[in-house]
Amino acid sequence: MAVISELEASVRHIGEELARLSGGQSPTLFERRWWSQAAINLAMHNPDFKTQLFRFIDMLPSITNDQRVVTLAQEYFGSMADQAFGLGWGLKALAATGVGARLSGHAIRAQVEQMARTFIAGSSVADATPVLKHLWTEGKAWSVDLLGEATISDHEADRYRDRCVDALHMLAKAAESWDHMPLLEQDHLGQVPRVQLSLKISALSPHLDPIDPDRSFESVARRLRPIVDAAMRVPASLIFDMEQAETKDLLITIFTRLFMEPAYRTFPHAGLAVQAYHRATTRDVEALLAWVRQRGTPITVRLVKGAYWDSDTIRYRQRGWPVPLFEQKAETDANYEALARRLLEASPEIRPAFGTHNLRTLAYIEAVAGQLGLSPSTWEYQMIFGMAAPFQEAVLRYGRRLRLYTPVGELLPGMAYLVRRLLENMSNESFLRKEYVESQSLATLLAPPAAAPVAVSAAPPGFRNEPLRDFSLVEARTAMQQAIGAAKEQLGQQWRSMAGGLNLTGPLISSYNPTCPEEIVGIVQAAAPADVEAAVRRADEAWPAWRVTPSERRVEMLRTAAALMRSRRETLAAWEVLECGKAWREADADVAEAIDFLEFYGAEWLRLSAPKRLGQEPGELNHRLVEPRGITAVIAPWNFPLAIPTGMVSAALVTGNPVLFKPSERSPVIGQLLAEILVEAGVPDSVLLCLPGGPEIGRALAQHSAVVTIAFTGSKKVGLGLLKETATVAPGQRLVKRVIAEMGGKNAIIIDETADLDEAVAGVIASSTGYSGQKCSACSRANVHASVYDLFLKRLQEAIASLRVGNPEEPGTQVGPVIDERAQATILEYIKIGSQEARLLVEGPVTQPGWYVGPTVFADVAPKARIAQEEIFGPVLAVLKADSFEEALSIANATEYALTGGVYSRSPANLDMARQRFDVGNLYLNRPITGALVNRQPFGGHRLSGVGAKAGGEDYLMQFVVTRVVSEQTLRRGFAPTE
Amino acid sequence: MAVISELEASVRHIGEELARLSGGQSPTLFERRWWSQAAINLAMHNPDFKTQLFRFIDMLPSITNDQRVVTLAQEYFGSMADQAFGLGWGLKALAATGVGARLSGHAIRAQVEQMARTFIAGSSVADATPVLKHLWTEGKAWSVDLLGEATISDHEADRYRDRCVDALHMLAKAAESWDHMPLLEQDHLGQVPRVQLSLKISALSPHLDPIDPDRSFESVARRLRPIVDAAMRVPASLIFDMEQAETKDLLITIFTRLFMEPAYRTFPHAGLAVQAYHRATTRDVEALLAWVRQRGTPITVRLVKGAYWDSDTIRYRQRGWPVPLFEQKAETDANYEALARRLLEASPEIRPAFGTHNLRTLAYIEAVAGQLGLSPSTWEYQMIFGMAAPFQEAVLRYGRRLRLYTPVGELLPGMAYLVRRLLENMSNESFLRKEYVESQSLATLLAPPAAAPVAVSAAPPGFRNEPLRDFSLVEARTAMQQAIGAAKEQLGQQWRSMAGGLNLTGPLISSYNPTCPEEIVGIVQAAAPADVEAAVRRADEAWPAWRVTPSERRVEMLRTAAALMRSRRETLAAWEVLECGKAWREADADVAEAIDFLEFYGAEWLRLSAPKRLGQEPGELNHRLVEPRGITAVIAPWNFPLAIPTGMVSAALVTGNPVLFKPSERSPVIGQLLAEILVEAGVPDSVLLCLPGGPEIGRALAQHSAVVTIAFTGSKKVGLGLLKETATVAPGQRLVKRVIAEMGGKNAIIIDETADLDEAVAGVIASSTGYSGQKCSACSRANVHASVYDLFLKRLQEAIASLRVGNPEEPGTQVGPVIDERAQATILEYIKIGSQEARLLVEGPVTQPGWYVGPTVFADVAPKARIAQEEIFGPVLAVLKADSFEEALSIANATEYALTGGVYSRSPANLDMARQRFDVGNLYLNRPITGALVNRQPFGGHRLSGVGAKAGGEDYLMQFVVTRVVSEQTLRRGFAPTE
Repeated sequence: MAVISELEASVRHIGEELARLSGGQSPTLFERRWWSQAAINLAMHNPDFKTQLFRFIDMLPSITNDQRVVTLAQEYFGSMADQAFGLGWGLKALAATGVGARLSGHAIRAQVEQMARTFIAGSSVADATPVLKHLWTEGKAWSVDLLGEATISDHEADRYRDRCVDALHMLAKAAESWDHMPLLEQDHLGQVPRVQLSLKISALSPHLDPIDPDRSFESVARRLRPIVDAAMRVPASLIFDMEQAETKDLLITIFTRLFMEPAYRTFPHAGLAVQAYHRATTRDVEALLAWVRQRGTPITVRLVKGAYWDSDTIRYRQRGWPVPLFEQKAETDANYEALARRLLEASPEIRPAFGTHNLRTLAYIEAVAGQLGLSPSTWEYQMIFGMAAPFQEAVLRYGRRLRLYTPVGELLPGMAYLVRRLLENMSNESFLRKEYVESQSLATLLAPPAAAPVAVSAAPPGFRNEPLRDFSLVEARTAMQQAIGAAKEQLGQQWRSMAGGLNLTGPLISSYNPTCPEEIVGIVQAAAPADVEAAVRRADEAWPAWRVTPSERRVEMLRTAAALMRSRRETLAAWEVLECGKAWREADADVAEAIDFLEFYGAEWLRLSAPKRLGQEPGELNHRLVEPRGITAVIAPWNFPLAIPTGMVSAALVTGNPVLFKPSERSPVIGQLLAEILVEAGVPDSVLLCLPGGPEIGRALAQHSAVVTIAFTGSKKVGLGLLKETATVAPGQRLVKRVIAEMGGKNAIIIDETADLDEAVAGVIASSTGYSGQKCSACSRANVHASVYDLFLKRLQEAIASLRVGNPEEPGTQVGPVIDERAQATILEYIKIGSQEARLLVEGPVTQPGWYVGPTVFADVAPKARIAQEEIFGPVLAVLKADSFEEALSIANATEYALTGGVYSRSPANLDMARQRFDVGNLYLNRPITGALVNRQPFGGHRLSGVGAKAGGEDYLMQFVVTRVVSEQTLRRGFAPTE
Repeated sequence: MAVISELEASVRHIGEELARLSGGQSPTLFERRWWSQAAINLAMHNPDFKTQLFRFIDMLPSITNDQRVVTLAQEYFGSMADQAFGLGWGLKALAATGVGARLSGHAIRAQVEQMARTFIAGSSVADATPVLKHLWTEGKAWSVDLLGEATISDHEADRYRDRCVDALHMLAKAAESWDHMPLLEQDHLGQVPRVQLSLKISALSPHLDPIDPDRSFESVARRLRPIVDAAMRVPASLIFDMEQAETKDLLITIFTRLFMEPAYRTFPHAGLAVQAYHRATTRDVEALLAWVRQRGTPITVRLVKGAYWDSDTIRYRQRGWPVPLFEQKAETDANYEALARRLLEASPEIRPAFGTHNLRTLAYIEAVAGQLGLSPSTWEYQMIFGMAAPFQEAVLRYGRRLRLYTPVGELLPGMAYLVRRLLENMSNESFLRKEYVESQSLATLLAPPAAAPVAVSAAPPGFRNEPLRDFSLVEARTAMQQAIGAAKEQLGQQWRSMAGGLNLTGPLISSYNPTCPEEIVGIVQAAAPADVEAAVRRADEAWPAWRVTPSERRVEMLRTAAALMRSRRETLAAWEVLECGKAWREADADVAEAIDFLEFYGAEWLRLSAPKRLGQEPGELNHRLVEPRGITAVIAPWNFPLAIPTGMVSAALVTGNPVLFKPSERSPVIGQLLAEILVEAGVPDSVLLCLPGGPEIGRALAQHSAVVTIAFTGSKKVGLGLLKETATVAPGQRLVKRVIAEMGGKNAIIIDETADLDEAVAGVIASSTGYSGQKCSACSRANVHASVYDLFLKRLQEAIASLRVGNPEEPGTQVGPVIDERAQATILEYIKIGSQEARLLVEGPVTQPGWYVGPTVFADVAPKARIAQEEIFGPVLAVLKADSFEEALSIANATEYALTGGVYSRSPANLDMARQRFDVGNLYLNRPITGALVNRQPFGGHRLSGVGAKAGGEDYLMQFVVTRVVSEQTLRRGFAPTE
């Protein structure tokens, strides 16, 4: 056995003492009173059951009908209930009869509510006050956390502000008369208020977004100040909770900025949480300590492990961002101990508070404090109301100040909180689980945290999506800001023609900034229809060399182009902001998707172009080969001005076809930039001819007999016209033309009665107002279940009204202008039609200058109304009421389109029904319906939404090739090599 | 060490003695005089080099130009020459200059010729006579084998007959004056003639085909009798060589039948070879011995190991037939020993001759003969001229009768023989190799053959093609004969309608037998265009249930249908013979292909219909799902009346679509049988409606707005019409229609100067005359290199003239009638056009009754001639001359079609060029261009030959579905299951 240090000996000694003091108590979760032990066991040992259980609990409060609770329970546990002998939820027995079902639904709800009440002190401050008083009399301080829905509107933010101010007053009033508790009311720096409120800063603004720290601060601070004012009067302490990783820096900024304001600089009871699991917290703590010294007034620092590990890790990985958290629990524990020591050392300037349920951690803090010779009044422990009762008891008996983090709020929003608590308790790494379920030895539990060496698993080979920019990083914001500035200095220039040296004879096209229509973004030379013949000839001459260029070389060109785009990422995005009025994130995503297309189609072509052996019989060798079809016309749209043309052009090029590329006349500069990048990457300019122009050029290209493939993205009308016009084979035409047409959509999101409305409202808004709805994937219909219809409409209305419509050059802008005057006129016309057909719920502002149409919502829309059937291509949403999921689905399917669709539901049966019957090319469950990613969500529709394989999917490139099968008889003279 | 038997002791003793007697000699192949040791080593140890070496040798004699020899050597050995340090062929050094190249080409040829002369006694009998005399004086008897090309015409068969008769006379005359050699001229049964001729029976007829033993016998016997007559006069012995496995029974039948004819029954010098590697030889030998007793005159039985193991094994495996040969060399060796003992035991009635180069075998025979107390004159040894000289010497010294199998013939056809010899010597299992290359110990070499236990490797999972019938088996022939008889008894019946209960209102269609047009094959009720609406409604009503029928269940139906087809295999084929005039093998192949489609599309659908996860990021689940498009019209042709409609219909059905199936009005009965089988297999009759009728029905189906997929196989004109007519989207139409159109071809086979003409001529004939050229894949052009043009034409002309045109009910018929009067008229019109455009080389007979047009060939056809550009769909071949491979390729590519194509070439560079640039959907190298197999040769063309993915390939089913991507956000409340 290794020699242990004095400190560790002390930790062990104290730990054993604390363990002794906790004896005889069992933590709440592990008591048997909620439900049968079988359910606990199952959840502990069966991850599938655990998932279902948590999801069921999460959804339960939104279901008001007992019968529905029973059917949902059956949906969730149907098959598992069979496995779970002795499950004891009584579903099987009780659900057999109608009466049984009612009873059972009631019983289930009652059980879960009881569970929730273990962790939540009351449904309101008034309701919770007796509980808080009882805690106080037991010698426990508290910090109230007001539970609430996610804030998605200014109205909701205001309401949270008001609740906080009210709570401060009510709590102070109640606590006034309580007994004096010296341990709880005095620390090393002075008096400690009886009232403490933990604040969820994100609830104070619908606009808390790290992309725009200034406006985020303003939006939050406006509502924070009344709360701080109240706290200073009362007095009370205020602690900022920490939230998701993206907002960490922003929350710290808001904290330090607000509490340096002259009015609040001397407030001694402000505090904030810091998360030990975050790799940057050590640095943050040092910065905070420096700031405290500068400020001159102490703050409270609450050290927690961090409660968002799972979701942060998943979300960052999903986005391809480096995870900023420690990946191993032991690393976090070690960091916690280091930070705890640092905070104790800094205690002359701060009030350290330690949130932990870990015996080892408690003992460690005691041992270090002992080493440092600190008075026990210097720090406090914080534990969670309803959790780890034995440790609460031990700390009390040990004579330390204990504060319970105590949620107050209604059951419904409280469920999210409950699930988080259950999750934490049941996690494989949970100290509580280790002690009470796994019965690990005390020595093991008290051993210092030791991270196991992690085998660095290389990412699996293959394509990875280009991560979006993380605009919570200041460097990302600065780069974008600078790129916009640089692009603005180049406005108005005429770009050189990229038509392989041909003299184009069309007019000059000026491209205007939709935000400031007097600004000419750039000027390009357009092609005339008469130029098509020469362009075809040029491409035809260049084809033979291009088709025999090795596949690897062509793929290399795509990869080089991707690298060029990466190196010009902000520049390209900036031009999109200026030419198309895209908000930062939309512009950035478009560039990332363009890079994805280049990389994905490159990788795909390496896979597809390798001769594929068919069969394995001896004496013969059969290989499938793929070869370019021939001259391809790419007719591109302006709404994803880089990504979509990049996809179509690069697919045609990498497969060996020459390309005649017509960028949209509404985004010719981005088209130009694409052509320049590809040529710079090595594509011969005779193989990629950029022919700017309007529909007449597209038609001339498509109809030329030597053009054998047409890749088009645009309107249904133009697409169907192309299909019809190209179906006749002209004399001498080599191939029957193939048209790949990505057309329109009239996309619906269904919201059923089990939906998480926080997410549903946000998802509908993101899907319908992102880039002003100018996406073929955009949501233009919301089909909402009658039982949540009014609530949905109310939250939607408030949230839409809170959106930031403005200049997309500003980082915080959520909705910019539409593309041009013509688009604006069309959309306004539809708004007029809608006003006759339905109830105008939100009227978007139509402002000048810039082609603005603000997000507009119609309610009570009939399924056959024009605004429910026709593609508007603007920020106009039709909300329809449906009495059942089936009806909502029927309505959703009853248009001529089948592009995207979405469902917000927590009913497994409804999600399954959607999987089976929601007839769209891309169906999204419980998430927004735009933003398909290459490879993960190959994109495209059917019915009249499109013809052809999905873009960014494995079948896409096959559309640009013919396949040949070469079969060789290898048996000669009775002899064949073994293959 | 195990106790060995007395016999084995004797074997070892004699073996050691023989080894001693062979001492000091080295077998020819292993001497160093041909080429450098490096080449031998390389071939022995590098299988790739061995392949190239043999192929090069095989091809060499056909190249008359020295310069070309050098370029070909570079094509063959280019890269390997670099590896082969010390290769010593001098390519690198000598090819550097023009003079060097000439020298080198000459040197290479000289080397290979010298090699060949080691194994071939002379280029003619006259040339060989001194060699034979020398052998005789050395005490060695001989058996002359007249080498020749493959016989593909009656003319060539006659020539071989004449060569045999002449050889007998010349050899007898020469041998007359030789010294008397008692050992060689007397055996236990009497006098042994000095002259022995080994006969290659397949050279005596172009019609040797086990499918038709009677006509095969007649064709062979007609030419055999003069040879036997001569042998009886001379006298000489005649030995039938054994050939490929399929012909074994036929050759034995010919032998026994001929030598029971009164004129030949007493001929005592007939003999035949039997192959120890064949599992059936033991049984064959018993039957032969019984026959000999019946005949009353002895025969010679030459026991050999067997020389076709590689090719037989490969060919049988390729066809999916059970290999009838022993798979292990040791099994063959053991069987050889057992057979040797049996022959020795039977020696009172036969003359045993043992062909072997195996020391153990020699010793074994001696030991057994000793055991049996036989006089050494009872048997003889046979070895191959030029091989195993040490053993020849040992046997002579041991005082035994030795006969050398001695090929005589020209270098060119001799190369095939040379390669076989080299192959045999270099085989890993060759005794010679073991002794002289691997230097195995004498004890090992003399050990009894012991087959290693073979791990029975299960066939790899997955689809396997349905094997064609092996018509060399009498049961297969009988079954087919009976099925035709049974079908003929059902001629003329009216079949019940398979239109899902609809009353079709079109006319009755009578289907006629093209062979006997007065015979009504069957009568079906046709649909009228007005019936289409009701059919669509029926299908539309049935669709919802069909689309949700589990994929596994639909696949099961296809598999059941396949099983039904297997059980009715001959019946279905018989109906094809009667309704479409297909020859047996063509009809059988069509049924097998139909089974393949059912099994393949079933397996494919299981693969494709399983939801496919996309991406692997946490927090999201993306799945690709595939779903039926909707009502599908299948418009089928008559030329593959079961396979093609089965493919189209089953693809549409298994993917979940309802099908409106219009069989061709020229093969309605087969269409009927298909519909019946599918319904019997479980497909609801409302989901598969059979609507017989003409083009007006096809058009009405395709144009109906509810029909969203059209699968068509037929003419270019109709196909392009369908494409055009379906391109307009009607109001209310659900999907843009998809047309899968398999159209025509104008397919060329290129024959270059390196081609193996035996195979090229046969391949062109099979491809152009099979089913009278009524295949879209049929060859209708032969582009022949100028240097072999005349020779090719000559052999082609003779071979075409020898084809058996006749009634397809007869098994030996190679070419039957065309489908009907209209087809006959069209073809005759083209023959008239051709006669004006080019030189009529072969005029096919146009006979009555039956719509016969015999195979017709035009020579000197210009590339732009109508008969070189337009699809004729009959047995009309245009032969074009080209001065280079490039030119031949350009000509081949210069039509509006791109379906199939072929190349006969042994130039790696030309084959590569074809792989790169022969612009056809299915390219075949060194094999016929028809008969594409499902999965191994997915079939279909581009340009104006077709639109859509290849039938029988992995992309085909995707045409009948839409794909949907379902993306679920799995992160809820910060919690996501691990997926």
